[in-house]
Amino acid sequence: MEEHSNHYAEAATPQNMEEEADLEARDPESNSLNQPLLKRNRTLSSNPLALVGAKVSHIESLDYEINENDLFKHDWRSRSKVQVLQYILLKWTLALLVGLLTGLIATFINLAVENVAGYKLLAVVAFIDEDRYLMGFIFLAVANLLLTASAAVLCVCFAPTAAGPGIPEIKAYLNGVDTPNMFGASTLIVKIVGSIGAVSAGLDLGKEGPLVHIGSCIASLLGQGGPDNYRVKWRWLRYMNNDRDRRDLITCGAAAGVCAAFRSPVGGVLFALEEVATWWRSALLWRTFFSTAIVVVVLRAFIEICRSGECGLFGEGGLIMFDVSTVTVTYRWMDIVPVVVIGIIGGVLGSLYNCLLHKVLRLYNLINQKGRIHKILLSLIVSLFTSACMYGLPFLAKCTACDTSLTDVVCPTNGRTGNFKQFNCPDGYYNDLATLLLTTNDDAVRNIFSTNTPSEYHPLNLLIFFALYCILGLFTFGIAVPSGLFLPIILMGSAYGRMLGIAMKSYTDIDQGLYAVLGAASLMAGSMRMTVSLCVIFLELTNNLLLLPITMIVLLIAKTVGDSFNPSIYEIILHLKGLPFLDAHPEPWMRNLTVRELADAKPPVVTLRGIEKVDRIVEVLRNTTHNGFPVVDDEIEPRVGLALGAAELHGLILRAHLLQVLKKKWFLKEKRRTEEWEVREKFTAVELAEREGKIEEVAVTTEEMEMYVDLHPLTNTTPYTVIESMSVAKAMVLFRQVGLRHLLILPKYEAAGVPPVVGILTRQDLIAYNILNAFPDLRSPKGREKRN
Amino acid sequence: MEEHSNHYAEAATPQNMEEEADLEARDPESNSLNQPLLKRNRTLSSNPLALVGAKVSHIESLDYEINENDLFKHDWRSRSKVQVLQYILLKWTLALLVGLLTGLIATFINLAVENVAGYKLLAVVAFIDEDRYLMGFIFLAVANLLLTASAAVLCVCFAPTAAGPGIPEIKAYLNGVDTPNMFGASTLIVKIVGSIGAVSAGLDLGKEGPLVHIGSCIASLLGQGGPDNYRVKWRWLRYMNNDRDRRDLITCGAAAGVCAAFRSPVGGVLFALEEVATWWRSALLWRTFFSTAIVVVVLRAFIEICRSGECGLFGEGGLIMFDVSTVTVTYRWMDIVPVVVIGIIGGVLGSLYNCLLHKVLRLYNLINQKGRIHKILLSLIVSLFTSACMYGLPFLAKCTACDTSLTDVVCPTNGRTGNFKQFNCPDGYYNDLATLLLTTNDDAVRNIFSTNTPSEYHPLNLLIFFALYCILGLFTFGIAVPSGLFLPIILMGSAYGRMLGIAMKSYTDIDQGLYAVLGAASLMAGSMRMTVSLCVIFLELTNNLLLLPITMIVLLIAKTVGDSFNPSIYEIILHLKGLPFLDAHPEPWMRNLTVRELADAKPPVVTLRGIEKVDRIVEVLRNTTHNGFPVVDDEIEPRVGLALGAAELHGLILRAHLLQVLKKKWFLKEKRRTEEWEVREKFTAVELAEREGKIEEVAVTTEEMEMYVDLHPLTNTTPYTVIESMSVAKAMVLFRQVGLRHLLILPKYEAAGVPPVVGILTRQDLIAYNILNAFPDLRSPKGREKRN
Repeated sequence: MEEHSNHYAEAATPQNMEEEADLEARDPESNSLNQPLLKRNRTLSSNPLALVGAKVSHIESLDYEINENDLFKHDWRSRSKVQVLQYILLKWTLALLVGLLTGLIATFINLAVENVAGYKLLAVVAFIDEDRYLMGFIFLAVANLLLTASAAVLCVCFAPTAAGPGIPEIKAYLNGVDTPNMFGASTLIVKIVGSIGAVSAGLDLGKEGPLVHIGSCIASLLGQGGPDNYRVKWRWLRYMNNDRDRRDLITCGAAAGVCAAFRSPVGGVLFALEEVATWWRSALLWRTFFSTAIVVVVLRAFIEICRSGECGLFGEGGLIMFDVSTVTVTYRWMDIVPVVVIGIIGGVLGSLYNCLLHKVLRLYNLINQKGRIHKILLSLIVSLFTSACMYGLPFLAKCTACDTSLTDVVCPTNGRTGNFKQFNCPDGYYNDLATLLLTTNDDAVRNIFSTNTPSEYHPLNLLIFFALYCILGLFTFGIAVPSGLFLPIILMGSAYGRMLGIAMKSYTDIDQGLYAVLGAASLMAGSMRMTVSLCVIFLELTNNLLLLPITMIVLLIAKTVGDSFNPSIYEIILHLKGLPFLDAHPEPWMRNLTVRELADAKPPVVTLRGIEKVDRIVEVLRNTTHNGFPVVDDEIEPRVGLALGAAELHGLILRAHLLQVLKKKWFLKEKRRTEEWEVREKFTAVELAEREGKIEEVAVTTEEMEMYVDLHPLTNTTPYTVIESMSVAKAMVLFRQVGLRHLLILPKYEAAGVPPVVGILTRQDLIAYNILNAFPDLRSPKGREKRN
Repeated sequence: MEEHSNHYAEAATPQNMEEEADLEARDPESNSLNQPLLKRNRTLSSNPLALVGAKVSHIESLDYEINENDLFKHDWRSRSKVQVLQYILLKWTLALLVGLLTGLIATFINLAVENVAGYKLLAVVAFIDEDRYLMGFIFLAVANLLLTASAAVLCVCFAPTAAGPGIPEIKAYLNGVDTPNMFGASTLIVKIVGSIGAVSAGLDLGKEGPLVHIGSCIASLLGQGGPDNYRVKWRWLRYMNNDRDRRDLITCGAAAGVCAAFRSPVGGVLFALEEVATWWRSALLWRTFFSTAIVVVVLRAFIEICRSGECGLFGEGGLIMFDVSTVTVTYRWMDIVPVVVIGIIGGVLGSLYNCLLHKVLRLYNLINQKGRIHKILLSLIVSLFTSACMYGLPFLAKCTACDTSLTDVVCPTNGRTGNFKQFNCPDGYYNDLATLLLTTNDDAVRNIFSTNTPSEYHPLNLLIFFALYCILGLFTFGIAVPSGLFLPIILMGSAYGRMLGIAMKSYTDIDQGLYAVLGAASLMAGSMRMTVSLCVIFLELTNNLLLLPITMIVLLIAKTVGDSFNPSIYEIILHLKGLPFLDAHPEPWMRNLTVRELADAKPPVVTLRGIEKVDRIVEVLRNTTHNGFPVVDDEIEPRVGLALGAAELHGLILRAHLLQVLKKKWFLKEKRRTEEWEVREKFTAVELAEREGKIEEVAVTTEEMEMYVDLHPLTNTTPYTVIESMSVAKAMVLFRQVGLRHLLILPKYEAAGVPPVVGILTRQDLIAYNILNAFPDLRSPKGREKRN
């Protein structure tokens, strides 16, 4: 993030910032669960720090603006039609590859999970069949511990950013916040392997969130031509070397991930649109749709191949799909009552879940800060607790006699899957709690969604199941393994939906399985606050279009109820991590503050001259952490109509380009304007797109310090600007809608002696939380009145 | 549209502009089919004229920007929490009402159409049964003529804007172009009645497009509290009295309309998102979804009621729904070939249709310009031709023997609906062409989509059907009745799809009915260029999720092929009508032009002083057609740091507000700044939201002319600005993304004597066509090179 902090004299490197943040974290007051994790300074611009994985790191903004300097303009003019075609072809090829690879990796994960978890469960069932219950437990617990440990160690040691769902960070990326190490090759590999480990370990988490992250990682890696250190230097890829095209590609990746998770192409596109993306346009809708179409084709092809039994234990079940299309849905007017009740309860429970999860995550952050061993231990404890509950609780349930009137179902079953698990029961009886617990999460959902089984589950056992998954759902999410939120919420929601179905049995004749589906939908809407995308995902998951109107109503009610309590779970996580996410709507009090007032609360803007001395550039780069500097010519040649003392705003130059100038030592002996060929000889547009390097790596001799640099050709001559009387609300709308990184503030006075630029705004300056810190009187309505 | 035209001296009222345009239209050169209909001047800003209905009218821009003047700020500060809640409640109530009313009206239209068309067809069948073929034809032709005439007369005499689909104008409205009389009460009523007449007359047009327009009309009328002259003065409605909230409501209305047309709630939302809306945000996604959910509930409720037979001839069939869920879809690898072929042909045919329809519409415009009688005659001729073909062509078809192996179908039928019409055939035989032609359009689609009937239609008869609907589809759309494009395209597409299915029969085993569905989808994608929304609409129409992957591929191919030939049909109509639609992407050559160059090609900007003389205001309002004027203070009080000759940009004042000042005679005897209470005494924020009145209606005495007005409190102090070196491309992105009406250009020089604002840009200035007229050298790549 570009920052104009008041750490002016000291070089604020990421390292010592981290230490500072650590110190703050150890401060007893900031350990309170009600304080924000990252303590910010009481100035307008705070340090650009955020929790990345479990570590506090330096973050940067993305640059979606087209940097119109002389080199770009030349590059633009020289682009031939062939190159434009190459660019279009590249975009579509990458969208195709994103879909293809996401589909393949999703299939691989499913294959691996189903086989690992399947053989594990088969071995446990074998012990149970021999009545060696203790051995069965020990085997299950040890297997789960090993799987969890592998996932946790990988996450902790190699890619801390692979822990968690990754969706909040993707959301932030698409909003313009570049969280470091989020989309690297190591993150991708750890996410894949860790996801397999964590899901096979039977932890209460899904592979859906991680698949979204995996899709985005694939997109990012493809866009930059491979892992950071081993990039393919393919000439065509230079077209993608900008934040705009990378953003579009990552949107495609996120949509492909959702599609791969739920086998839901339209739902994937809508999820990316509704929940993840900040900027959107019709062309992107089409390209993401293409990616998800490819994913679906790949998934279908593999299901066809696996149907012949060549994939081990992987069958139809591997890819999540809860088919309730066999149920004929008919509505009566009375059905509106249970539907409304489900919606309201879903909203209340969802917001309660958000609130509690927030507290648990804060607690976990404190534990995780203590070191790697603590993180791994925490994961192992959760795993052991899960194993104990999964294996132990079914002993509490009474055995139920199989319903002999159902001829088309096998009862009891003692294999890996099946709806009526025998477990510890005699022949002809089944244990309904074992059906729900001693299985993979996917199968558990399938079993609880199963239709035409109104009396399969005892209400008390459903209550145990619900309570267990509430606890697990809260305490599993924050551990250091890749984890998705979708499946835990679906499990919780389906349990209470089914309980409600049993309670309402006498009033309506909606199927019990549908109650479970509606319960799951309502809890998701209550916690994640999606509407259209969730509706379509459920439509595609359950394969029953007649469910649509009823699902819509449940979702609308649940979201409305949830929104009246707290924000969505992703927004809570974003805030917790300190990611400077720019909201779509300005706060009402932002209308009462002008950008000039905001700029005056910051240190004065640092400007450079069009032809600047090298030592001044080095000094500015060393002593500030800003990433963009206005370029002002105050000694312009006399022109018609311009009096003496006139100044000209030439534009904005980026830190990255200044660093390139210093690295390449493009210095002039005398103070003069350069010709275009001189610049083009030294720099290419491709090089300028790179954003690497630090001022500490640059060595400049004392002699060179006295030389000059002509900044004009490298300056973006068309920066977006606002006038100083603009309200912060309107400036923020501009900033977000156009996707800016820097916004210059111009004076409204036209006179000699007035500087042509009076301030600069960045993302951090427009975050409500930061503004309120600098202007505490805006907090109270009275203070707002007073200002006017 | 705000304009800075060079009609400086003469008052350019809409009347004489229309005459000018008429004169131009009569110019033989402009009658050429390749010239744009509206001849524009060779200056940058053209006249803000567009074809509205079939008339050339004056159009205006919408103002989505928040006009932050002193009165607004005071109103904003004084808003209590209760008022904010009222506002939110109002928005949701209106969304509910939009859904409710759209659903009710859609049901009413369906009821009416099914009954009118049904009894008409029953009477015709009765004549045929008695072998009185000529009488049958005369009855059909006369009935159709009468129905068409009623629709045409209504459209021509009472609401010319009700003709056509209305979707392009809605698209333009949501882009910021306020086409007059588009959303009035008379338009709504004529659209409803005319739609019933035109569809029951058996013309080749649908009620889908009109339903979208009806939904938008309802939304607009609700938002403003009733028809223009009889508005409800409900206090709450003032919250909606701005272009932003009205835009959101009309988006809801458009989505509700699509949903009502296709019984497709998700498809409706996506259609609004992909095709109609320019600005979008997540909150709107949710609200439109709410509206469409209500529509679906209303439609379902009425279907339940009508099932008991209380709705005359209206049964399940009334609302479009082509259920193909009975077909089990299985794919083989080979099936990709016909799918690709359908996609490619759909794209080619779709773009060909666009191209031909463009020519026909231009021809029709020339006919329509000749007067009302010509318009009505044209409609009647088309109606007569349609009747003749519908009735006459089936005589060409041979009678086919009923397939006695199909036990569950009635064959032959001679009622109103049914898949095997007897027509002129003996018992036990059916006429396949009569099945397709002598029926309502909805039933025709249902019959051609019907599955498990591989040999029902003879290929030759399908070819006749296809050829007929190609001709009708081209020549029906432009006549002066409410007409939708969806159904004609579905009919054409399904015919060629089924033909292709017969040709491919030996290679694949995809059902013939599915071929018809895919053909229809491909042609729609080829002509309208929608993807995701179309896919979901077809999903919801055909009720078969397994069709999804195959539909996606067909749509993607058809759209790609179509896009390589010409723009979508809606864009063609927008261009034809001369509506200044702002595209999402700037043209590449816009990077080579600065806003200063653009502004210099226009007459100099007209600015007002902060405290201005009344006669200057009257003069400016009379002699220009601009709708916004920068307010500049050049005699500001001396301040620290400001030299003599300093000038200050205070903001932008709207013509509407100047008119209010003149009307209310808020004049000052001496030159002084007013206090806030003085303004608040005279004006309310509610009054300022009105945009009515003309300068011609204002009378100012000579004495008053010498008085002063303090414009400061009414000036929007926070206009969006760009710096003069900004490229047109970036300015256009800003203009469109933020939804502006005026964009001020500031100088990049800071010096005494430089005016604080050097130009002003409006929508018309940023339309590529207008810029190219003023800078013809930008057309050629060479000219562009030279500029740099």
